Amino acid sequence: MPEGVLIAIGGHEDREGSRTILKQVAKRLKGDVLVLATVASHQPEGYFEMYEKAFRDLGVKELRELYVNERAETQEPEKLALFDDAAGVFFTGGDQLRISSQIGDTPVEARVRRIYEDGGVVAGTSAGASMMSETMLVRGTSQESYRIGDLHMAPGLGLVRDMIIDQHFAERGRIGRLLGAVAHNPRVLGVGIDEDTAVVIEERRIKVIGRAAVYVVDGAEVSHSNVAEAESDYALSMHDVRLHVLTEGDCFDLRTRRPKGGMPDEDEAWSPSDERSKR
Amino acid sequence: MPEGVLIAIGGHEDREGSRTILKQVAKRLKGDVLVLATVASHQPEGYFEMYEKAFRDLGVKELRELYVNERAETQEPEKLALFDDAAGVFFTGGDQLRISSQIGDTPVEARVRRIYEDGGVVAGTSAGASMMSETMLVRGTSQESYRIGDLHMAPGLGLVRDMIIDQHFAERGRIGRLLGAVAHNPRVLGVGIDEDTAVVIEERRIKVIGRAAVYVVDGAEVSHSNVAEAESDYALSMHDVRLHVLTEGDCFDLRTRRPKGGMPDEDEAWSPSDERSKR
Repeated sequence: MPEGVLIAIGGHEDREGSRTILKQVAKRLKGDVLVLATVASHQPEGYFEMYEKAFRDLGVKELRELYVNERAETQEPEKLALFDDAAGVFFTGGDQLRISSQIGDTPVEARVRRIYEDGGVVAGTSAGASMMSETMLVRGTSQESYRIGDLHMAPGLGLVRDMIIDQHFAERGRIGRLLGAVAHNPRVLGVGIDEDTAVVIEERRIKVIGRAAVYVVDGAEVSHSNVAEAESDYALSMHDVRLHVLTEGDCFDLRTRRPKGGMPDEDEAWSPSDERSKR
Repeated sequence: MPEGVLIAIGGHEDREGSRTILKQVAKRLKGDVLVLATVASHQPEGYFEMYEKAFRDLGVKELRELYVNERAETQEPEKLALFDDAAGVFFTGGDQLRISSQIGDTPVEARVRRIYEDGGVVAGTSAGASMMSETMLVRGTSQESYRIGDLHMAPGLGLVRDMIIDQHFAERGRIGRLLGAVAHNPRVLGVGIDEDTAVVIEERRIKVIGRAAVYVVDGAEVSHSNVAEAESDYALSMHDVRLHVLTEGDCFDLRTRRPKGGMPDEDEAWSPSDERSKR
């Protein structure tokens, strides 16, 4: 299967300052048309204007809003026509269940998938990142250790295989729920993305961009877990997890499950001075 | 060096319901005298009454309060006499820097240490757990990934070697700062304890009790870290961390750094029904 580029963002990406992540989205589009899918939100008002402003001087040819209020609208020719000549789709935040339930298995999803398979860009922030997973985390607890009964998963769009993506990761204390998700089947790699941070996934390789960190939870060597045995109120026990904390420039090979330290490309790096100049 | 028992509690241990953890403290005292050290708090009023009530029917012979408002008081004979015949000390929560700065290298500390070396019990919750570390975490960030400049450590009482203890762990999203602490020198094992959860440390072995989880961060195999290289505003990168999530009954051997799954002893186990009966 030919594949394009996925850019999964942990939420709250900078839209006014250095815009490190949005710049990368624009760069991958090569100046072409971008569809802004605001489907995840119940109240999408204002999103389009915000992103239009953010992308304005980044060289995107045209930004087009796709909103689907009811699933039936995914059949409408004028909605589908939004994808004509588009080189990428950007999913804004909200509720990942709205994305999967509104567009899953519809002509709109088929268009998204075709863009990706044709080598285009599918980017998403927050809920828009989560939905890329095969099985996605939905709601679930934050700031507490995972309890056996905390099953809050649902089928996502599955643009990336063998991976569960979580977002707002350090900010909302989500290591517990990501460990819980991986415990259920260590075939899936857990990828937790901080705010204003993203992973660029292409050719079965992850590259990190942005200001904070990405946590990769690899359960391949797990030697003990109580996930299938304990009562639902019990906390998760899980031994021998391999954890990688990746920051800008770091890569991760999805085939070998090995990280590689590195420096970001000069022209795309997040810099502490960007941050300082905003303060 | 002969050693007693350390009981490090992640804060907010149950004091009214099943009291799983306080029961363990009482059990280890074998009905003897316990000194309640409220040194960590600026406003220790009410602590003694609360713990006296909590311990009342658990078989503790006598509870005695030790408070030190000024460092000079650690020389007073009446303060030191509180330790006569005591089999254990329990440090309540507050600020770990108050414990280390008020009693570090004083006759009071010597009495605490002697109790421990004579095979007694030193227990502590929250700040009282942190201060047991050689190098302890002080303040530091919660709910964000660790940045290279976030050095918030200070010398603790060092009752346990080669270990950094953190508390309120999942609840305050502290995995980032514990990873950061371990990155500085993987000789130290990171031990993050959730609320109403504790580790019992004796004979270089950890055992977990209570309702949630304990996270053990082992940096022995770390293959890459930017902690010594990157600018202070950059996020921490750290590859190949071994992480264990331990729950009640699980053990961890500090000599071999290996976890062992297990069941809690029947009479001391936390049970979901304790929780339910409280709701």
